[in-house]
Amino acid sequence: MNRFFLPAENTLGGQVLFPPETAHQIARVLRLRAGERVIVFDAFGIESRIVLTSVEAHAVVGEVEFQAPNTAEAPVDVWMYLCVSQREKFEWMLQKCTEVGAAGLAPVVSSRSLVQSLPELLKKTERWQRILQEASEQSGRGRIPKLLPPMHFEAALTQPAGDTLRVLTWEEENGQSLHALLKRHAAAHSVAVLVGPEGGFSPAEAGLAVAAGWQSVSLGARILRMETAAVVSAALVIDYYENQAQADLE
Amino acid sequence: MNRFFLPAENTLGGQVLFPPETAHQIARVLRLRAGERVIVFDAFGIESRIVLTSVEAHAVVGEVEFQAPNTAEAPVDVWMYLCVSQREKFEWMLQKCTEVGAAGLAPVVSSRSLVQSLPELLKKTERWQRILQEASEQSGRGRIPKLLPPMHFEAALTQPAGDTLRVLTWEEENGQSLHALLKRHAAAHSVAVLVGPEGGFSPAEAGLAVAAGWQSVSLGARILRMETAAVVSAALVIDYYENQAQADLE
Repeated sequence: MNRFFLPAENTLGGQVLFPPETAHQIARVLRLRAGERVIVFDAFGIESRIVLTSVEAHAVVGEVEFQAPNTAEAPVDVWMYLCVSQREKFEWMLQKCTEVGAAGLAPVVSSRSLVQSLPELLKKTERWQRILQEASEQSGRGRIPKLLPPMHFEAALTQPAGDTLRVLTWEEENGQSLHALLKRHAAAHSVAVLVGPEGGFSPAEAGLAVAAGWQSVSLGARILRMETAAVVSAALVIDYYENQAQADLE
Repeated sequence: MNRFFLPAENTLGGQVLFPPETAHQIARVLRLRAGERVIVFDAFGIESRIVLTSVEAHAVVGEVEFQAPNTAEAPVDVWMYLCVSQREKFEWMLQKCTEVGAAGLAPVVSSRSLVQSLPELLKKTERWQRILQEASEQSGRGRIPKLLPPMHFEAALTQPAGDTLRVLTWEEENGQSLHALLKRHAAAHSVAVLVGPEGGFSPAEAGLAVAAGWQSVSLGARILRMETAAVVSAALVIDYYENQAQADLE
């Protein structure tokens, strides 16, 4: 069944009024008709099955048939701090990290990033937000990850809240594996992962991160491209807390 | 340092003669000169540091300075059976699965695949082989994954050797997680993963696979696109055998 994000204010007493863009999607692109059903989810993790009662190009109305909490969210909040890269690659990372279940995403400008201007990046917020929403709708998630404003590397280092486990994926790390680090933090509820740009972090940047409390890890014996490191690290962290952390705590 | 695959027959008594394509890359693209060093690896997992002794457009010669076994290969052979998809997406899967460490890759035609003709797919072998080689060179691997010939879904089901753990990623599987299945096979040395096309396998196909001994698993609570499922499942399997299997065996 088609799934859409629906802001809570668009539901009133069991009646649903779809926002214009979603209405267009339902009426014109998918050509659904009154009587057909869709799933909507709000920002609070509630999912509803909706029967469409009226479908017109600019106004689609429905009625809530059934409501339940969404169960597809990860048991850990994973915040992906992604160095800004070439457009396609960066958008791909946003989409993939959303699919695998990241709680939030931050565009980071490091010394080796292609784009250096934050105002330039701010202009892309709307487009990125749409990517996050579509990937959330399509992957069955219960919420849209939070898109943090673009920030410089130094600001990213100080960002995540105090009890967040902070992980730096660094290809020159040969000691600690991500798995070993997670095992030592099996009770964590929030993990931030910083993924470097093409060419990696400079040794100075890695030093700053470690001094600020980030723990550098290796993602395995092979060197991953930036976008691969992003989706793989997000997936490994979520898989660990979904499937292994409980056993390690016992 | 730049890395290249070098067939064993190109080395003789400590002397190396690069094949024409690699010579072109060294001399014309990277513009390396005599005295500079590169890394080469062969099909047997041996890595050598080479000092270039003569660099000309069509003939580049070098000398072995140092040899050692490559240590970047996974402790498990992961065979990815990937349903053929739109060109870019499929090539992307080949690249990413090579990076994360797959031992072999097979293009599979299922009922919902876009391309159905095996001869049509065979024409792409050379191009795909180049993708595998480049991704191996770049990710520091010790060998190039094996590219199996394109095959129909039914043939893929009977392919992997008898003691290979055979895994079907199926979005309609709600019971067994990949992690739980791997835990029950912590001693496995070979794992085959079958990844469905867009729209997933048909229930009939999934039934055939299960009847043929494939075990269907879920990759988590979220629905992944085909290409995401491919790289994530390869990465999770390899991470499990690199970091967790030994502890589960004890």
